[in-house]
Amino acid sequence: MSRKIRMGMVGGGRDSFIGPVHRIAAEMDNKINLVCGAFSSSPKKSRLSGQDLLLPPERIYDTYQEMFQREAKLPDGVRMDFVSIVTPNNLHYPVAVAALEAGFHVVCDKPMTMSIEEARDLERNVQETKMLFCLTHNYTGYPMVKEARDLINNKGFGSVRKVVVEYAQGWLANNIESTGHKQAAWRTDPQLVGASTSMGDLGTHCENLTEYITGHRITELCADLTTFVSGRKLDDDGSILLRLGAKTRGILWASQIAVGQENGFRIRIYSEKGAIEWDQENPNSLIVHWIDKPSEIRKTASSFVGKAAAANSRLPAGHPEGFLEAFANIYSNFADALLYNLAGNKVDENRFDYPTVRDGVRGMAFLDAVVRSNSSEKKWVTVQD
Amino acid sequence: MSRKIRMGMVGGGRDSFIGPVHRIAAEMDNKINLVCGAFSSSPKKSRLSGQDLLLPPERIYDTYQEMFQREAKLPDGVRMDFVSIVTPNNLHYPVAVAALEAGFHVVCDKPMTMSIEEARDLERNVQETKMLFCLTHNYTGYPMVKEARDLINNKGFGSVRKVVVEYAQGWLANNIESTGHKQAAWRTDPQLVGASTSMGDLGTHCENLTEYITGHRITELCADLTTFVSGRKLDDDGSILLRLGAKTRGILWASQIAVGQENGFRIRIYSEKGAIEWDQENPNSLIVHWIDKPSEIRKTASSFVGKAAAANSRLPAGHPEGFLEAFANIYSNFADALLYNLAGNKVDENRFDYPTVRDGVRGMAFLDAVVRSNSSEKKWVTVQD
Amino acid sequence: MSRKIRMGMVGGGRDSFIGPVHRIAAEMDNKINLVCGAFSSSPKKSRLSGQDLLLPPERIYDTYQEMFQREAKLPDGVRMDFVSIVTPNNLHYPVAVAALEAGFHVVCDKPMTMSIEEARDLERNVQETKMLFCLTHNYTGYPMVKEARDLINNKGFGSVRKVVVEYAQGWLANNIESTGHKQAAWRTDPQLVGASTSMGDLGTHCENLTEYITGHRITELCADLTTFVSGRKLDDDGSILLRLGAKTRGILWASQIAVGQENGFRIRIYSEKGAIEWDQENPNSLIVHWIDKPSEIRKTASSFVGKAAAANSRLPAGHPEGFLEAFANIYSNFADALLYNLAGNKVDENRFDYPTVRDGVRGMAFLDAVVRSNSSEKKWVTVQD
Amino acid sequence: MSRKIRMGMVGGGRDSFIGPVHRIAAEMDNKINLVCGAFSSSPKKSRLSGQDLLLPPERIYDTYQEMFQREAKLPDGVRMDFVSIVTPNNLHYPVAVAALEAGFHVVCDKPMTMSIEEARDLERNVQETKMLFCLTHNYTGYPMVKEARDLINNKGFGSVRKVVVEYAQGWLANNIESTGHKQAAWRTDPQLVGASTSMGDLGTHCENLTEYITGHRITELCADLTTFVSGRKLDDDGSILLRLGAKTRGILWASQIAVGQENGFRIRIYSEKGAIEWDQENPNSLIVHWIDKPSEIRKTASSFVGKAAAANSRLPAGHPEGFLEAFANIYSNFADALLYNLAGNKVDENRFDYPTVRDGVRGMAFLDAVVRSNSSEKKWVTVQD
Repeated sequence: MSRKIRMGMVGGGRDSFIGPVHRIAAEMDNKINLVCGAFSSSPKKSRLSGQDLLLPPERIYDTYQEMFQREAKLPDGVRMDFVSIVTPNNLHYPVAVAALEAGFHVVCDKPMTMSIEEARDLERNVQETKMLFCLTHNYTGYPMVKEARDLINNKGFGSVRKVVVEYAQGWLANNIESTGHKQAAWRTDPQLVGASTSMGDLGTHCENLTEYITGHRITELCADLTTFVSGRKLDDDGSILLRLGAKTRGILWASQIAVGQENGFRIRIYSEKGAIEWDQENPNSLIVHWIDKPSEIRKTASSFVGKAAAANSRLPAGHPEGFLEAFANIYSNFADALLYNLAGNKVDENRFDYPTVRDGVRGMAFLDAVVRSNSSEKKWVTVQD
Repeated sequence: MSRKIRMGMVGGGRDSFIGPVHRIAAEMDNKINLVCGAFSSSPKKSRLSGQDLLLPPERIYDTYQEMFQREAKLPDGVRMDFVSIVTPNNLHYPVAVAALEAGFHVVCDKPMTMSIEEARDLERNVQETKMLFCLTHNYTGYPMVKEARDLINNKGFGSVRKVVVEYAQGWLANNIESTGHKQAAWRTDPQLVGASTSMGDLGTHCENLTEYITGHRITELCADLTTFVSGRKLDDDGSILLRLGAKTRGILWASQIAVGQENGFRIRIYSEKGAIEWDQENPNSLIVHWIDKPSEIRKTASSFVGKAAAANSRLPAGHPEGFLEAFANIYSNFADALLYNLAGNKVDENRFDYPTVRDGVRGMAFLDAVVRSNSSEKKWVTVQD
Repeated sequence: MSRKIRMGMVGGGRDSFIGPVHRIAAEMDNKINLVCGAFSSSPKKSRLSGQDLLLPPERIYDTYQEMFQREAKLPDGVRMDFVSIVTPNNLHYPVAVAALEAGFHVVCDKPMTMSIEEARDLERNVQETKMLFCLTHNYTGYPMVKEARDLINNKGFGSVRKVVVEYAQGWLANNIESTGHKQAAWRTDPQLVGASTSMGDLGTHCENLTEYITGHRITELCADLTTFVSGRKLDDDGSILLRLGAKTRGILWASQIAVGQENGFRIRIYSEKGAIEWDQENPNSLIVHWIDKPSEIRKTASSFVGKAAAANSRLPAGHPEGFLEAFANIYSNFADALLYNLAGNKVDENRFDYPTVRDGVRGMAFLDAVVRSNSSEKKWVTVQD
Repeated sequence: MSRKIRMGMVGGGRDSFIGPVHRIAAEMDNKINLVCGAFSSSPKKSRLSGQDLLLPPERIYDTYQEMFQREAKLPDGVRMDFVSIVTPNNLHYPVAVAALEAGFHVVCDKPMTMSIEEARDLERNVQETKMLFCLTHNYTGYPMVKEARDLINNKGFGSVRKVVVEYAQGWLANNIESTGHKQAAWRTDPQLVGASTSMGDLGTHCENLTEYITGHRITELCADLTTFVSGRKLDDDGSILLRLGAKTRGILWASQIAVGQENGFRIRIYSEKGAIEWDQENPNSLIVHWIDKPSEIRKTASSFVGKAAAANSRLPAGHPEGFLEAFANIYSNFADALLYNLAGNKVDENRFDYPTVRDGVRGMAFLDAVVRSNSSEKKWVTVQD
């Protein structure tokens, strides 16, 4: 079946950061076309946003409900195949449920929902509707993250002992939400973002990357969240001790008050016989340590990386691929799954290497445990998905 | 005029590296659509390549001549607006001339032609036809390159004294062209690539970046080219001493035998009171030195960079933009100029910040001087554009 | 008073790592001479070690007791001025007490004692004898650590919010203590090293550097220590959440199983308006972040660093000073204090910028709290010095 | 023979940068003691400098002639064994000749003489007197430089193709010699420094490091020297194309006007199957590239480096050794040779791995060729030692 997949979008209108990211990522590999959208809770803004994107007026909708209803009635070959949900966090759940029930596959931004209960319910919904569901935990799309996973899971590395993961930003070091900064405003508002700013926005990326690369799950944790900026309702920094089963320990740090840090997402994993270091701001290099030979630098698209890394890059080595390309890998792998599904096959989502509703449940279970731990005087709290 | 610009492509078929780069770059910012192409000198391959891209059969052409002829007859609103030439070097000139004469604007890969004479002729052609012409010297599209230019041209930096520029790759350290490696084969073939491999492919990027950032032109040079790999017909490494007028000196190194180097394009410029360092493999950082304060690290999209850098990035600071995004900046700026032109305005190409036919002439004049210098026993040879 | 200060040494014989470090550091700046020693608990080894150092036979002693007794009887102008204690941890306390009581000033390696009780007792002893006491927390001797302290304590930085400090090594990732590795053997033996391997050897450096730079004290902590290598009696890795008073939080990680890490001691401190990053393996650079301007790289001995950094370097900028030079700064500052004292003045040890017995008590109080926390189910444990 | 070697010093008095460096380096490894000196051409300054060093008054001399004459008459066991010459360049030759003729071994700072003729004459003198002669080309003392040499000379690397070496400083970007800056004043004075500032001070280090690591000699060169700072008599920047025999090419850049560069001495060497990169400001790492496996980072004192590197380090891996330690390696290796010689053995200087009078002749031959090339209109000039 040689055709482009048709995408609709909910959210992501004018002034959105993540909307254009999803559009560029989705369309990069010539597999997906944006064909319609309900880009804002304001019908007028939705219309203007759709016009910016040069969409035909009849495919720009006032609400997501209208979009699902009217798209469902469009003929094969025109109707959108899936919807991409890029709203603030509080709308992820209701929009996703509505899409699934209207018969559309879903791509959803993270964190998946506002609570673990919503997450579990959404997972049930996905299982019942048998629709495909992709959560854009985009950082797992980087080639060298996949190389790290391959190395860590290779027997030569031995078992994983220690994970040190951090996501440090500095843009909320001041109370900029009180100055009309839109991105800051919704991210610090409990109604829109959930129970934690630092952990919902950043900590869940740490959790997801850790579990993706190691294959282990965080089982217990001990969290200390802090609100450093006065007047702010939610935490802007948090430190967490991790246990991943009986044999693996970890440290997780997420912060939005780390002055000078832009998007400092870094992970280091120490196994018995080897270790890896990766830094999102220098994403095309992977430092690999060995117990019995000199440390290596592996680079995206070089002839020395494994299959998964190679399959997720577009350019020769030395031509930097960045955030958008990693994001596009998520969409590209999802598109492959969706084409396979549209051709009548049953899809094993894990085989296609994109994050699923399961990852979303894990993220919310992590957040739930973090918030419980933060208010507990007990050292360890169990993560329950 | 709110519509997408329509692009045709010549070359760039299956197995091409640069074809997909141009397509992704052109389409990234939602301003341009690929609508047709003659993708290969083999009609069959052209057809298959067009099918891969999901183009309608009637817009896939057997030859570029056919494409220009038939597109010219299509109605407004359908007909392609410009052609992107991504063939091997030897076809740039004839295809560009044909396009211009058929009334199409042109985007052309570099080096622009096979000789300085062709280059001068093409410049004349562009001037006469009054078409827009964009040369994809893509590395000038990086935001931090633009920041470097702003700094160097700022009075606080004083005049430029020394340029140290290099472009080091290692992929031709062995005779891989004899093993069926297609990219290596045409790049080492004098018939397809011109008079120099290292300088045509890489040295012209060094020349262009140097002249773009400093605003000075290379006036004299002293070149030493070498063919290290036996059996190869053209040089695979070259060192050049530069003079940019009376007051500025430079060193230029281009190599394809630098084992371990992937795409090591780096420039350092030393002025009286400041200096900059930029490295294509770490493109989102610019090291800035000052004679009277500590060295700085400026980063893409941070709040501390100037207008040109800010206008050429898409994402918040810390979200790495790479090779494709820089390439897309060239297309995006060209698209702005073309829309302005299509709306009936006269375009000053320099105002839109993309490389023009003049850059192409400079590149070929540089190459011409390099080859003359290499076979001369005199120290200095003059660059004549 | 123009003369060299005379040093005796206890411990540090053949095969010792730290013995030669102390000798080179002490003698580097031409202020101190090693004149005698009791280099080993084995009299024979002590003698051979002294011969290696070309000491006269009569100044090589069988035991530290003998050394103190006989040196005390030597005339002015010959008798050693102070003793440097570089034995395994378990001997620090008894040797130091004996030295003080014999009327010798003391330089002592860290950690200062085996328990908080010993530490408090030693502090009392120092106060009573009025001798000078220097603890070689050598990492505070680096110029850029002093620059960091100056910046953090500058009002322009605002108050300290978060400290992230780590000391990662990989040399104990295997059970090398069972293979006859002497350094590994004593460091993993509870009788010789105390209650924790990772925290006694490395964690106390983290604690000391944190308190030195910030001027804040760790008040509460939550520790998770692990023994990853089977057969080992003490922990080889530990993660700790820190609180430094009500307004400052931190994370401390110390490990000896971090494969590929050699001496990865790093600290990052985030204040309201600025931040610093320092890495012991690249000690001559200090990354400085500002909330309102680009990040800086400050370098040892450049004209842009403050007084304390400048006073603690010997070479022009760009000439790397390393571990031995930092160590020598501790001795050099101590020598200045001792000369001042020998000239009959009362010394305020803090003014001379070297670590004192107070730092030693802090270190043992930290260790004591860590061990208590590790076996507690409560989240927070108080540090009591 | 277990005794310390006795060193005298000529030059290096108060305000000297290099005097203390030689003293610390010489004494670091407990093999050498400074016992006497003629520290300045001003007898008064010599005396004060000697007092600073706590030397006995009778071993502080007014002139080097007096020192050689009176030391020669001192008894065995007291008399100095060798002299270290750390004067400005113009005195190296006469002092060295006088020392050799008075029967003293010599350590001499670089560049060795003021002219190639003096250099050849000094070499003859060394051969005739059979004294040991060590030239402190200190940068070859770094462990990772020795590791680089081992790798380059290993058959697995294939033959050397390209050398890119540079030594960039920025401290002379302004005319600071006119403001009373003593170091700047003599280094820019043709009477004291010779025919070139940038190449005498820095370029010879590049030449020496290149020939030391590769084992090849620079045979031809093409130089372009520039004086950027007005009012200056000698060049402050130079670019040179190199040929090392028929098969190896190179680029050499030395500058003192590179704003922001402190002591940026870097070398990259590309062989057929491998390559190395080393940077003096980060001296404990060596980047190693391979044609068939990922790039490596080798580090001083790790278990993965070869014998020569291991023999020239003092501390465990991760404990940075710097400029002084590298300098001390030169002295330490020379001390071993001298002890061997004093014990009555014939010394093959090359076996002891320190730079000799031959290196000094090479340096002056390089400088001579550079100056001839700079004023020639011919491209290539031959190096004649």
